[in-house]
Amino acid sequence: MGNSFGKSLVLTTFGESHGVAVGGILDGFPSNLEIDPVFIQAELDRRRSGLDFFSSPRTEDDKLEILSGLFEGKSTGAPIAFLVYNHDQKSSDYDQLKDVFRPSHADYTWQQKYGIRDPRGGGRSSARETLVRVAGGAFAKIFLHSKNIHITSGICQIGMFQIPDPATRITDPEILSFLEQLKKDGDTTGGVISCTITGVPPGLGEPVFDKLHADLARAMMSINAVKGFEYGAGFKSAAMKGSEHNDLFVSKNGKIKTITNHSGGIQGGISNGEDIYFRVAFKPVATLMKDQETISVEGNPVVFKGTGRHDVCVVPRALPIVEAMAALVIADHFIRNSGCWADKPERLEPGER
Amino acid sequence: MGNSFGKSLVLTTFGESHGVAVGGILDGFPSNLEIDPVFIQAELDRRRSGLDFFSSPRTEDDKLEILSGLFEGKSTGAPIAFLVYNHDQKSSDYDQLKDVFRPSHADYTWQQKYGIRDPRGGGRSSARETLVRVAGGAFAKIFLHSKNIHITSGICQIGMFQIPDPATRITDPEILSFLEQLKKDGDTTGGVISCTITGVPPGLGEPVFDKLHADLARAMMSINAVKGFEYGAGFKSAAMKGSEHNDLFVSKNGKIKTITNHSGGIQGGISNGEDIYFRVAFKPVATLMKDQETISVEGNPVVFKGTGRHDVCVVPRALPIVEAMAALVIADHFIRNSGCWADKPERLEPGER
Amino acid sequence: MGNSFGKSLVLTTFGESHGVAVGGILDGFPSNLEIDPVFIQAELDRRRSGLDFFSSPRTEDDKLEILSGLFEGKSTGAPIAFLVYNHDQKSSDYDQLKDVFRPSHADYTWQQKYGIRDPRGGGRSSARETLVRVAGGAFAKIFLHSKNIHITSGICQIGMFQIPDPATRITDPEILSFLEQLKKDGDTTGGVISCTITGVPPGLGEPVFDKLHADLARAMMSINAVKGFEYGAGFKSAAMKGSEHNDLFVSKNGKIKTITNHSGGIQGGISNGEDIYFRVAFKPVATLMKDQETISVEGNPVVFKGTGRHDVCVVPRALPIVEAMAALVIADHFIRNSGCWADKPERLEPGER
Amino acid sequence: MGNSFGKSLVLTTFGESHGVAVGGILDGFPSNLEIDPVFIQAELDRRRSGLDFFSSPRTEDDKLEILSGLFEGKSTGAPIAFLVYNHDQKSSDYDQLKDVFRPSHADYTWQQKYGIRDPRGGGRSSARETLVRVAGGAFAKIFLHSKNIHITSGICQIGMFQIPDPATRITDPEILSFLEQLKKDGDTTGGVISCTITGVPPGLGEPVFDKLHADLARAMMSINAVKGFEYGAGFKSAAMKGSEHNDLFVSKNGKIKTITNHSGGIQGGISNGEDIYFRVAFKPVATLMKDQETISVEGNPVVFKGTGRHDVCVVPRALPIVEAMAALVIADHFIRNSGCWADKPERLEPGER
Repeated sequence: MGNSFGKSLVLTTFGESHGVAVGGILDGFPSNLEIDPVFIQAELDRRRSGLDFFSSPRTEDDKLEILSGLFEGKSTGAPIAFLVYNHDQKSSDYDQLKDVFRPSHADYTWQQKYGIRDPRGGGRSSARETLVRVAGGAFAKIFLHSKNIHITSGICQIGMFQIPDPATRITDPEILSFLEQLKKDGDTTGGVISCTITGVPPGLGEPVFDKLHADLARAMMSINAVKGFEYGAGFKSAAMKGSEHNDLFVSKNGKIKTITNHSGGIQGGISNGEDIYFRVAFKPVATLMKDQETISVEGNPVVFKGTGRHDVCVVPRALPIVEAMAALVIADHFIRNSGCWADKPERLEPGER
Repeated sequence: MGNSFGKSLVLTTFGESHGVAVGGILDGFPSNLEIDPVFIQAELDRRRSGLDFFSSPRTEDDKLEILSGLFEGKSTGAPIAFLVYNHDQKSSDYDQLKDVFRPSHADYTWQQKYGIRDPRGGGRSSARETLVRVAGGAFAKIFLHSKNIHITSGICQIGMFQIPDPATRITDPEILSFLEQLKKDGDTTGGVISCTITGVPPGLGEPVFDKLHADLARAMMSINAVKGFEYGAGFKSAAMKGSEHNDLFVSKNGKIKTITNHSGGIQGGISNGEDIYFRVAFKPVATLMKDQETISVEGNPVVFKGTGRHDVCVVPRALPIVEAMAALVIADHFIRNSGCWADKPERLEPGER
Repeated sequence: MGNSFGKSLVLTTFGESHGVAVGGILDGFPSNLEIDPVFIQAELDRRRSGLDFFSSPRTEDDKLEILSGLFEGKSTGAPIAFLVYNHDQKSSDYDQLKDVFRPSHADYTWQQKYGIRDPRGGGRSSARETLVRVAGGAFAKIFLHSKNIHITSGICQIGMFQIPDPATRITDPEILSFLEQLKKDGDTTGGVISCTITGVPPGLGEPVFDKLHADLARAMMSINAVKGFEYGAGFKSAAMKGSEHNDLFVSKNGKIKTITNHSGGIQGGISNGEDIYFRVAFKPVATLMKDQETISVEGNPVVFKGTGRHDVCVVPRALPIVEAMAALVIADHFIRNSGCWADKPERLEPGER
Repeated sequence: MGNSFGKSLVLTTFGESHGVAVGGILDGFPSNLEIDPVFIQAELDRRRSGLDFFSSPRTEDDKLEILSGLFEGKSTGAPIAFLVYNHDQKSSDYDQLKDVFRPSHADYTWQQKYGIRDPRGGGRSSARETLVRVAGGAFAKIFLHSKNIHITSGICQIGMFQIPDPATRITDPEILSFLEQLKKDGDTTGGVISCTITGVPPGLGEPVFDKLHADLARAMMSINAVKGFEYGAGFKSAAMKGSEHNDLFVSKNGKIKTITNHSGGIQGGISNGEDIYFRVAFKPVATLMKDQETISVEGNPVVFKGTGRHDVCVVPRALPIVEAMAALVIADHFIRNSGCWADKPERLEPGER
């Protein structure tokens, strides 16, 4: 279990790194929406490796095939299934993986849980699984765009380098030089991504366990290599006073707004109409192109060195993944929210509630 | 919706701050466990206000009544229902709340979502709701203790003060003086709690969406006032190199261990047998005993000043809440994990997998 | 697990026959609906024993207490909790039950599943559990009535007696005499209930696994003592020809109708706007006031004879239970259906689709 | 939504009759089981049309491709995805379907629900969807066989003909002649299938809403064309006396058995170790090869006559579908049951509980 995400809009995924295919089924997608396959493929291409010098040179096409759920280019309400075949299935590179538990990978824990594992490229625990999230998220974005909700993200930290103005590409020579040196050393590093969602109407999210930010947190923490999540003022809020942190309400042109937005667009678990923003921390890539001591599956000490294609830093490729998971959460809550109020009026103005 | 938590062990809660009662139903609790009501009440008492000078003086008994699911002191497999009646239901203090949207509270968002709200003490969005989490978590702890799994927590930051050795009570004179000054000023602050879970066997957690740390993140972020979550090396891991962060495996006395534990006891979303640890950031309490500008429900500017009982900092009272939510997550995954492996052997040694 | 029912409107129940209380939490109930507690209590009273000479003389008040989810008489969107305390908790009558597995009761199976059971009055498996369904269903009816959906039921068979015009009370002298004789003999019988739902708009139900009639079937079969379910032409349809069974469409006054309704108001799992109707078969009450051979918990032969209060036939009391479960299913699907169509128009006329 | 089935073992399906492919994802399947693809394909072949003279002549191969979840022939605990491509996608036969609402089909209700539909061959509502159930059920059977649980089914009624000894093939000349005449007339008929499950240990099923027979009922009623379900003595039990219907317990060779089995192997919603058996009623096939009056999508009267391939009676092809859904239910409950009892002993004998 655990391969489905969402309550009203549910993405169920499958596939191993070097299996036949990776793909998913998106159930609960609203009917009568035009689906632009070019947009969906473009999202996948953003995630694909090989875009940056410091990404891994895997050059699969990642060509998405849509198998169901559309008729004459529109969603029908039926589940939308899609997949990408794995053309790069040669397992020779990975023979070395079947006898060893790689440090900080899922080899050991999967084996303990299931008593068997697919060692080829990390199997189900490979980052290739995130491709399906990006595809599912692209559909969710199409729905959200029809509601004028938009999601953007940027890199705000690479290794120890802060990037004050979150960027989608790294151009700072100092950072690039740092990354090049890591690559030479066979080493890796982590980073932080920030994400902003605009246009979310007030009222999305549930007040107790399924708070909007709780579901965003779970979504982000479910991405490979993520170690931390904060929204609004985040960890910094711990050091603030209430009189600094509170977002005061004002009425502007008949609309209720807050002056500041330390709340990150969510209060009591429910969106308040301001921008939603959050940050996600990624650990360094676990596969190193240098010797590491570890143990074999028999429990004997061995030295392991990665081969094949692996990123120095996962963060640039993770931008569309973060956005995709955010899109799935917001779309899910948008649909869930439909029935909460008997005979809901079209629009609420101050004084009408 | 959104008032249930868990998949195999499910806590469903109800109740408003000044309604008749708060309580819950715990479904899926294993049978044949001795239930010690004194332990459960003691957990509730840890959470109750009035324990510390800087907590609010609400002095309700919070006496838990168990309504079902036990026979002769043992769990029967039937759902366990429990509640605490609200003795403190006088709503006079809260008449002022019905006409105003308090800053950084859920008043405005609840109204937007549902078109109606219970303004008495914050209604369903009151922190009193967390009482039920603590009760449910106490049952989960009883189950976990039977499996030698234990959960502890401590305060590691209050306002801007770091507490290197996480503590369950604040004794540092400087911090106490800071908190007293806040109280005088009618102001508040936030803090950070760290939590550690020992004894978790390898294999809990699901590899993709329901990663163990993703469910812990959602659990923590669903607690009132929480703004951030990190596990293992957390946000700090973003600045580390892979060669620093990776946890190398070793075989000790026939058991597989890691030398370091930057992974926080979880790899690929599945527990690896090491201690699980994480940190949770709380924002400052939103209710201030000083004037704040905000708006009325009609959208007009008003000045609001809190009255009644409210904490200067929620963190000391939040320790048992954090532990309770952690207990619910671990117990849920323990039970979920039962059926994942056909004919699972009792115990796995190196070389046996 | 298994004590929750519904997906968007979820009823979670608790309680044993002779425990402290029985009750439930209804989550997902739409906000802004007036709740009439008199109506809800009246539904409970319909179910209560003692109404008919052939029902058991249990005379509890079954007075419902609502604990949460309402403010000034209206639903707020918060979970609605309610309970009925069990005043009749004297367990002396039931001491005989702890050492025996009664025939065709849940004693043996519960013991096998959980290794422990509450023998007092059947514990969790007592028909007293259905009280909570009736209460939850009464809330669902309030929602449905606001949508002009109404549910009625009648008895169409008692023992071997067919009742051509389904009735809510038995008045036929022959049947009454049969029931009196059964009572004298310490014996029991079964029966069949028919139920009709009017006013359901087209479009409720999901096309594949969650077909509207599949969820109705599960709802009915989950009621104690139910052994069969059929909707529309039901089992009789097996012997029909397609040319007899098919419901031909006609357009009447701009509305699409069917001439016949063998489909029972549901086609392809989705309501078509015609009346929904179905039938539910109940087995005879398992507790007999006469000697039966069975075995003790140690596996030794014993003779068991029921004592206390038990019905000769459960069907008259089951009418509100059948209606309640139907109400929960229809209300759940009504709410689930809200978000299925992006930008759904208010109303569909022929030629507009 | 509504395209997933099960709680611990979850089958999610996709695909339209004349889309690219039909398939599914089976999540929660236990690891370390040998998967025999020949057995799975054989189950699909049982369902495939064209086997009998009175089935429709569709001659697709229905060749299943398994995309994930296996490694070296064994299940790994990862989700198992599979699909069958639709080779027979020529939509010319179905042009006539887009403008008409066929009687007793899902055309009208789907349109009302979603505002758009895929008319080619019935789209998502086609019986071709059941192919995926058979494939998913075949995996479930592999799991059940490893637990010595076996499922068989037979035809016990075709049209008005009762078949006392349920058969997997129709050989009675009178019935065959009846079916041939129907075919000549362009008409159809219904039937009833009985199904038996042997080897189910005591303890499967949940006592309240998720009773084992309630989940079986929902599973069966979710199959296209099913109108009724009964288990054990079923509708006949309504006319019985308690003293006739009750199943008396006896202890045989240290095992607890019942003398009769009117309970159908389930008491209080939980299996008791006896054979589980139930019956499922199918309506006549809705597509007739003769003129029927109906309406166009604009609401105008039209005459519709089916073309292409359609069965005279669906029951012979439905046998593996009934078995597949039963297998999914039993396997799901087997896995769900794993964690219900803390420290469950291996085996229970009389006197040990």
